[in-house]
Amino acid sequence: MNTHKHVSLNLNVRGLGQSATIAINDLSRQREKEGKEVYRLGLGQSPFPVPRPVVNALKQHAHEKDYLPAKGLPALRQAVADYHRRRDGLEFNVDHVLIGPGSKELMFLLQLVYYGELVVPTPCWVSYVPQAIIIGRKVRLIHTRYEDKWRMTAQRFERFCEREEDDLRPRILLMNYPGNPEGCTYTPAELEQIADVARRYEVLLLSDEIYGQLHHQGTHISVARYYPEGTIISSGLSKWCGAGGWRLGTFAFPSELDWLCESMAAVASETYTSVCAPIQYAAIRAFKGGTSIERYLWHSRRILAALAQRIAGVLRQGGIRVHDPAGAFYLFLDFSMLSDTLARRGIIDSASLCDRLLEDTGVALLPGVSFNRDENELTARLAYVDFDGARALTASETIPLDQSLPDDFADTYCHNVIRAVKLLVEWLQRF
Amino acid sequence: MNTHKHVSLNLNVRGLGQSATIAINDLSRQREKEGKEVYRLGLGQSPFPVPRPVVNALKQHAHEKDYLPAKGLPALRQAVADYHRRRDGLEFNVDHVLIGPGSKELMFLLQLVYYGELVVPTPCWVSYVPQAIIIGRKVRLIHTRYEDKWRMTAQRFERFCEREEDDLRPRILLMNYPGNPEGCTYTPAELEQIADVARRYEVLLLSDEIYGQLHHQGTHISVARYYPEGTIISSGLSKWCGAGGWRLGTFAFPSELDWLCESMAAVASETYTSVCAPIQYAAIRAFKGGTSIERYLWHSRRILAALAQRIAGVLRQGGIRVHDPAGAFYLFLDFSMLSDTLARRGIIDSASLCDRLLEDTGVALLPGVSFNRDENELTARLAYVDFDGARALTASETIPLDQSLPDDFADTYCHNVIRAVKLLVEWLQRF
Repeated sequence: MNTHKHVSLNLNVRGLGQSATIAINDLSRQREKEGKEVYRLGLGQSPFPVPRPVVNALKQHAHEKDYLPAKGLPALRQAVADYHRRRDGLEFNVDHVLIGPGSKELMFLLQLVYYGELVVPTPCWVSYVPQAIIIGRKVRLIHTRYEDKWRMTAQRFERFCEREEDDLRPRILLMNYPGNPEGCTYTPAELEQIADVARRYEVLLLSDEIYGQLHHQGTHISVARYYPEGTIISSGLSKWCGAGGWRLGTFAFPSELDWLCESMAAVASETYTSVCAPIQYAAIRAFKGGTSIERYLWHSRRILAALAQRIAGVLRQGGIRVHDPAGAFYLFLDFSMLSDTLARRGIIDSASLCDRLLEDTGVALLPGVSFNRDENELTARLAYVDFDGARALTASETIPLDQSLPDDFADTYCHNVIRAVKLLVEWLQRF
Repeated sequence: MNTHKHVSLNLNVRGLGQSATIAINDLSRQREKEGKEVYRLGLGQSPFPVPRPVVNALKQHAHEKDYLPAKGLPALRQAVADYHRRRDGLEFNVDHVLIGPGSKELMFLLQLVYYGELVVPTPCWVSYVPQAIIIGRKVRLIHTRYEDKWRMTAQRFERFCEREEDDLRPRILLMNYPGNPEGCTYTPAELEQIADVARRYEVLLLSDEIYGQLHHQGTHISVARYYPEGTIISSGLSKWCGAGGWRLGTFAFPSELDWLCESMAAVASETYTSVCAPIQYAAIRAFKGGTSIERYLWHSRRILAALAQRIAGVLRQGGIRVHDPAGAFYLFLDFSMLSDTLARRGIIDSASLCDRLLEDTGVALLPGVSFNRDENELTARLAYVDFDGARALTASETIPLDQSLPDDFADTYCHNVIRAVKLLVEWLQRF
């Protein structure tokens, strides 16, 4: 029997570890067990609770036990289509909306059914590339620069397409904005220019807008506005609804791409079957929105914006380069200005940077290499989520939404994040 | 853009329809829309509600929002390990239990990570083979016979192994008992003999015991008793707990196969991430069992056994060959004795048999060809689930468990199933 171990694992999955975000979590947990303090700025989980009306909807539907259609509960698909109409000004046919157990799973199915290449600007979310590797697809990375706010410019994209010898090969460009890991986003003009290149080169877009609702000013715009016929919008409950653990993601397809939707639904029916029934019923409530959910979102945004601005200031004072945060709950830190200082302490890449930081201070960040950046680049993602979101929301709710939060709000309610950032800066100064 | 449709679908998924069980459901729904009566003996969904303590546990944990570990909530994995100790007399390390969004998804991941062939006795459940096709794996079918109760004998399995030129190639044998679609099971002696062949030829077993708790006498035994080092047990909430729509399946690995478990967990972390948190908390309650769940199970078994025996009798009187039901909620009907009569009406295969039956009588069965039988074989699966399980349970609960149900119980509480079977027999007599 033992020999099987060595011969019978799919080469594509051999050596595949758990995803990097989960690994940092395990390491942090171990430190805590040893009685050491840990500042959890590694895992990107929403700090906010699931809105009460949505939790109540789950309770009301706890008895639902039937297998639901592979594409999802029709009433939920309708709610998602309505949501995109309301939020994005886009029309989707209810038959072209797909509900999956997380948008991550839907991305996996898309890569599985689509026989083409994946084009991914970096820094990128940790799972896009491993998924392609598992399935055996080719991935093409487009490395962006700090100077471009870690965003892929249309010029850069066009140059990439021009250089291809076989420029009509099937390709999907992955876009993620507001982005993980950098918290930046595109302007409407930038989106329009990228859409234009994609249309000319017949590249499909998978637009990962899971953080769309967490644009700090509430002004997220989808690239599908400019390239509706070639864009799939990915969204879900995990981030704006604080329900990562519930596992519900959505894809919305233009009618031109119905064949991809149908093929994914067929594979869904042979794999996960359909998404958990009680969760789908509860998700209808979430996507329907309304006053209480709108308020929840505006308070979430206001808290995240205030905290992000506060810590960006501290980090810059410490010599770290970081962009003004636009959305989500991440900052992508560039330590390159400090490379000489760090090198003297033997820190020459992002992995050693994060390991040493965790060891010396208890601050957990994720290294740039986890986001497909060059391993020698001194970058890291900071997820500013280590605070009690329920408590912060309650406090924010006492202050009218047309006012700013007081200057000391973040220090009072997001104490751990501020403290971690200060520890990080002090640690650098000790060098 | 249009050309993409023709060139960029993975060949393995091209033409893949929705699974057969879902297709029959759609067809039935269409008939109902036209105002015609339908007897839903097609889809294999438990007629019973989720036990009340388990529904209550879901309500209590509706607010749980965290991403859980890829392998599953440790307390749930412990409950599953305890459950196997209690039910099967088998010890599993909590680290070798995997929780997935349905055992179907776990089977898919297993086929994805394992680089080997799948050996499947037929008639078999509808999704094993499509999964292998999606991934691009080879499937080897072993066709069983009515005379062997549609079970694969150890002799048949050994002959299969002997004939292989490369008899050490990595292989997994899929066993499903009590079985879908035939409702039969193996004796302990039969399991021991099959285990012996598997050990000698180093074939792994994936033992699909999703219906184990629905053995009508409550005496299910796992093949892992006889081949612990090479058997993975698959189970879940869908059947015995009536929670198909909740999507929670479990795999339990021997420590010898920990490498498969780890590899599946790594792929899980890059695909579905982890199973829905509130559902995992509720599942702890289900797997812990206790008096109320035991009673629920015994009443479920007693109702299913009475109904199955009742309809098997009616079917035999109609000239259909069918085995004594042992578990689950299926009968696999063999119409071969009636082939001449049927042929005169143009019914020459299982598909035309089921189509005509649905058209003429409204009785929905699934054709044998859906279970990988020869398309010309006149067989079909009958799922005796078209009754109000909550009402039947309530009625059964008024009768002490040490007594038999009254003779008219099935006719009273499972009226639709009885009526459908009578319609089927009358339909045959009309020929």
